[in-house]
Amino acid sequence: MKQLPRMGPFGELDVSEWVGEPPASTLADLRGRVIAIECFQMLCPGCVAHGLPQAQRLAKIFDDDLVVLGLHTVFEHHDAMGRVSLEAFLYEYRITFPVAIDRPQNAGLPATMSRLGLRGTPTLLLIDKDGELRLDGFGQLDDMALGAAVAGLIAEPTSSE
Amino acid sequence: MKQLPRMGPFGELDVSEWVGEPPASTLADLRGRVIAIECFQMLCPGCVAHGLPQAQRLAKIFDDDLVVLGLHTVFEHHDAMGRVSLEAFLYEYRITFPVAIDRPQNAGLPATMSRLGLRGTPTLLLIDKDGELRLDGFGQLDDMALGAAVAGLIAEPTSSE
Amino acid sequence: MKQLPRMGPFGELDVSEWVGEPPASTLADLRGRVIAIECFQMLCPGCVAHGLPQAQRLAKIFDDDLVVLGLHTVFEHHDAMGRVSLEAFLYEYRITFPVAIDRPQNAGLPATMSRLGLRGTPTLLLIDKDGELRLDGFGQLDDMALGAAVAGLIAEPTSSE
Amino acid sequence: MKQLPRMGPFGELDVSEWVGEPPASTLADLRGRVIAIECFQMLCPGCVAHGLPQAQRLAKIFDDDLVVLGLHTVFEHHDAMGRVSLEAFLYEYRITFPVAIDRPQNAGLPATMSRLGLRGTPTLLLIDKDGELRLDGFGQLDDMALGAAVAGLIAEPTSSE
Repeated sequence: MKQLPRMGPFGELDVSEWVGEPPASTLADLRGRVIAIECFQMLCPGCVAHGLPQAQRLAKIFDDDLVVLGLHTVFEHHDAMGRVSLEAFLYEYRITFPVAIDRPQNAGLPATMSRLGLRGTPTLLLIDKDGELRLDGFGQLDDMALGAAVAGLIAEPTSSE
Repeated sequence: MKQLPRMGPFGELDVSEWVGEPPASTLADLRGRVIAIECFQMLCPGCVAHGLPQAQRLAKIFDDDLVVLGLHTVFEHHDAMGRVSLEAFLYEYRITFPVAIDRPQNAGLPATMSRLGLRGTPTLLLIDKDGELRLDGFGQLDDMALGAAVAGLIAEPTSSE
Repeated sequence: MKQLPRMGPFGELDVSEWVGEPPASTLADLRGRVIAIECFQMLCPGCVAHGLPQAQRLAKIFDDDLVVLGLHTVFEHHDAMGRVSLEAFLYEYRITFPVAIDRPQNAGLPATMSRLGLRGTPTLLLIDKDGELRLDGFGQLDDMALGAAVAGLIAEPTSSE
Repeated sequence: MKQLPRMGPFGELDVSEWVGEPPASTLADLRGRVIAIECFQMLCPGCVAHGLPQAQRLAKIFDDDLVVLGLHTVFEHHDAMGRVSLEAFLYEYRITFPVAIDRPQNAGLPATMSRLGLRGTPTLLLIDKDGELRLDGFGQLDDMALGAAVAGLIAEPTSSE
């Protein structure tokens, strides 16, 4: 079990709107808590088969010890993945964590995805209690290793502790 | 292995348009061939996880011995499952068989789904060489039993033989 | 869906004993029926994970239309896979079809496995109504294709019909 | 994510022999390290399908941070699960962690299984750095929750720290 690297301050999401209630006005308001962000597109088969169900398991298993968010990073088929479509999708797939819509830009990549240099979807991001990015996991992640990684972050003290 | 019951003439699909090339102008033109119709909605989780992958396996395994069609039977979230959305979905999921769009009606159920009294999605329909409905399979179907059922229909003579 | 090749008369099993009741004194006595023989070793991981559960599904789905047999072809770890061990294994895994024990020989390969030139375990053999070998399937077989293959054999007339 | 309860000192295994090299003369010698013990029988389907593969994933993911052991707790079919059979089984299933053989007793239950009151197999036991039993998990355990539980124990200080 390898220590997760420290990849610098994550900063804030740049989103146009939320489906569901955001857990706080800013991620900075969540300091002291570990955050998991599932970056997905509703028409991405790997997100539907693996990424989103795994994020739901994270939310269920870690409960109040972990803030789980979705980030809808639409970079293709924009007309097919607007808010109305996303809401129907989240309803049918019983996704209950809040989902932010990454701010569309003129070019294909939305704002947050572009700033972070994400390779595609699904990508799971883990942010530690100090607001630092600790995992940028693209593709299909192993459940046991991910459970260990999250628990390791939860067990870390905050820098101010 | 039970003989598939004979449930009467299937008749024709009542569709508004096709995505992909229809295999014939009418189903009647396909007499002498066995037909599988996967009735689905693009935002139906059971269709995405089970029904559509199974229809793709049918198309691959039976090849020219079976006509495989999709029927997009939208009965909920109509705004989220229009043609543009469906095309993006079919592209992302690599669905290569032709898909008919069941004709929308004022009430929720589209025309063909309503006429056949389908219980929901996914539903797999099998039509024999004489145009008779032989299977109306709702939900998750067993691969081995389905393979046997289709092969049984292919082995049947047509009534005119 | 390809026609199964005709690979010549299968002949008879050469076995030392049976666990469970053999379906007939000889395979010749089963002419007119399709036979599936699951060749396995109880300590072969692929047999336990795939081959044997698939044979159980064959027995369940095709019921009286198919004779399902096991053939315990021990070619390694002979001391660990004797009759007492096999019986405990069959009990724990709820294998209910009869299992023949391939006759041990001085060299590693037992008699039937050696005569047929089987490549290893699991191997599924299909024998048609005329006693001809039609499938020699080594490794993990697809459920849908196998279901179709068996149904195709069941639909064939016997040569005397 | 719930804190694992403290269930008292685990004590020592009472075993007749080992297959593979034991990691230490006694579990007491392993104080300061977290220990996972997979209690299994080689002919137990749930052990083969779930328990043992999960223990192998534990060994791989946690590597030097976790001591993984097997405990062969034979309580049925004793003649079919002797040392020769067990060695063949471990070889075929590529089990590389050391396996202790729970000491047989006159009655059916072996010594360690009897002392601990285990309900059956598979059972996964987790022992913390202070030698205290923290998990007695019977049946099929969730990978993510287990990964989190082990990581939580690894993150705990020893009582002497």
